[in-house]
Amino acid sequence: MAQQLAIGVDLGGTTVKTGLISADGNILATSKLPTRADENPQAVIEQIKKSVSEVLKSTNGATVAGIGIGAPGLIQNPGGIVKNPPNLKGWDVVPLADEIAKEFKMRVEVDNDANVAAVAEAKFGAGKDYPNFLFIIWGTGVGGGVIMNNQIYRGPSGGAGEVGHISINYEGLLCNCGTRGCVEAYIGQKYLSNRTIEKLRANPNSKIMEVVGGDLDKVAPVYISKAAEMGDKLATDILVEAGTLLGVMIGGVMNTLDFRLTVIGGGVSAVGNFVYNAITESVKKNVQKPLRDGIKVIRAELGNDAGIFGAAGMVL
Amino acid sequence: MAQQLAIGVDLGGTTVKTGLISADGNILATSKLPTRADENPQAVIEQIKKSVSEVLKSTNGATVAGIGIGAPGLIQNPGGIVKNPPNLKGWDVVPLADEIAKEFKMRVEVDNDANVAAVAEAKFGAGKDYPNFLFIIWGTGVGGGVIMNNQIYRGPSGGAGEVGHISINYEGLLCNCGTRGCVEAYIGQKYLSNRTIEKLRANPNSKIMEVVGGDLDKVAPVYISKAAEMGDKLATDILVEAGTLLGVMIGGVMNTLDFRLTVIGGGVSAVGNFVYNAITESVKKNVQKPLRDGIKVIRAELGNDAGIFGAAGMVL
Repeated sequence: MAQQLAIGVDLGGTTVKTGLISADGNILATSKLPTRADENPQAVIEQIKKSVSEVLKSTNGATVAGIGIGAPGLIQNPGGIVKNPPNLKGWDVVPLADEIAKEFKMRVEVDNDANVAAVAEAKFGAGKDYPNFLFIIWGTGVGGGVIMNNQIYRGPSGGAGEVGHISINYEGLLCNCGTRGCVEAYIGQKYLSNRTIEKLRANPNSKIMEVVGGDLDKVAPVYISKAAEMGDKLATDILVEAGTLLGVMIGGVMNTLDFRLTVIGGGVSAVGNFVYNAITESVKKNVQKPLRDGIKVIRAELGNDAGIFGAAGMVL
Repeated sequence: MAQQLAIGVDLGGTTVKTGLISADGNILATSKLPTRADENPQAVIEQIKKSVSEVLKSTNGATVAGIGIGAPGLIQNPGGIVKNPPNLKGWDVVPLADEIAKEFKMRVEVDNDANVAAVAEAKFGAGKDYPNFLFIIWGTGVGGGVIMNNQIYRGPSGGAGEVGHISINYEGLLCNCGTRGCVEAYIGQKYLSNRTIEKLRANPNSKIMEVVGGDLDKVAPVYISKAAEMGDKLATDILVEAGTLLGVMIGGVMNTLDFRLTVIGGGVSAVGNFVYNAITESVKKNVQKPLRDGIKVIRAELGNDAGIFGAAGMVL
């Protein structure tokens, strides 16, 4: 029997990247088109349709289960409605799933980047042997996705998994969102880099300065990690603290959901293993005893293709 | 057509309370027997069987959907296995669901007190019009239950809903469980009463002293609430702070699950409405914007009968 196929669309601010994916995780065809984000929703929708049509030429007669789309902004589900994506001009409220389904007469699912990346790891990546886990996207901000019984858990209105805005200190740092103590306000890439820059003023001999060639604008978690691996104490302290704080939040989620596994993706997930050790230790400290033995924190496996894999995974 | 019936068993340290409950929430028969907790598991199991047999006499030929049991200790699910309940002698690991199912040849579900109370509110109480909510039991400790799609969410090993041990301050008070900053360490009845007693030493003119007749051993949230309602500032501050801290934790759970409603039961839930207002305000501050409008925090409706209602509700 021919394998089932699905189409995954990664809708970015500059590029629409589309892949024809097989159920066992092979990319059979891809298409890349400019998003035309600075025009209007209809122009962008046309680009999506065009890129889907392109990869559809490669199905070789096999069944296509549907089309998944990872989109920026707030996604209302059920319904696949995109609301106010930051990088797409004129998108107020767009019923994207309907628009695409009308054209291709097949199932269409739309979800946000974090949920799509979570599905990618669940179906094809680090989480594929685990029916339940928390996925965290650790980058500029901190986002998340909840995989429950092998499926993405979206919640009643599609907003589940906003774990970056869980407060880990009610007296803590003020987050951009207005809440005090969000874990994002401690460990989001920008916040973390800015606090590092402040500390560097008092510690100009840190190896972090060496790694970024003296250019403070370059300070970022991956470079801090490099300095830590060169034995720099400041760099190590900063990232161990970040991991420990992330673990506090993860522990709370594990206590709520009775989960054991966390998979971490996003730009900052490239930091060294010592950070993962710090996260794991902290999660163990922050969960109830019966959960402690099983706690695991691992790195996401899919890189740039997570978007098309996860989008396709939503309909497979 | 005759209504469906179910049997609910509330297994306590001193009494086994059993009810025959109809699907529309009427108690058709009850039985109360001593638990015989100081003997051995078999003695207790015999008491459960006896009490179930007693109420079964009142079915009048109607179908009984099954038997639900609310038990102390850690419950492993699926399986309904009771582990180390604090008040039952000799119970190490007891497959309670199996033991009871063998006797009555019907479906048996076992769960912990917090989950059972959550089910009671979902089927018959404050949550009956809501498919998704967080139930909190605010008493000596702080426990919880997650109602998802009209069902109790137990998690992969039956341990979900341990929201009392979510940290709201990684630098905060040390909880009995070993974690720092658990919300229970701030607002659990004992912790809250002890901190109030400390504050009373510096504020001996507080109306709390009047309400407890000068007896510091009597200091408890419901009395603090009474003093607050008499206009006492110290009492008001203490409970508004407790509600605010509870709201921080609830906000984190709402962000994770995309829920809007919280139902609060347990001994402390009898505090005045001003506490519920403080909780609600705090939850709104601690959730992402799209959730804010829908946030609601309400009082549980079922009192002492929550145990048998919820236990029956698990099999209805």
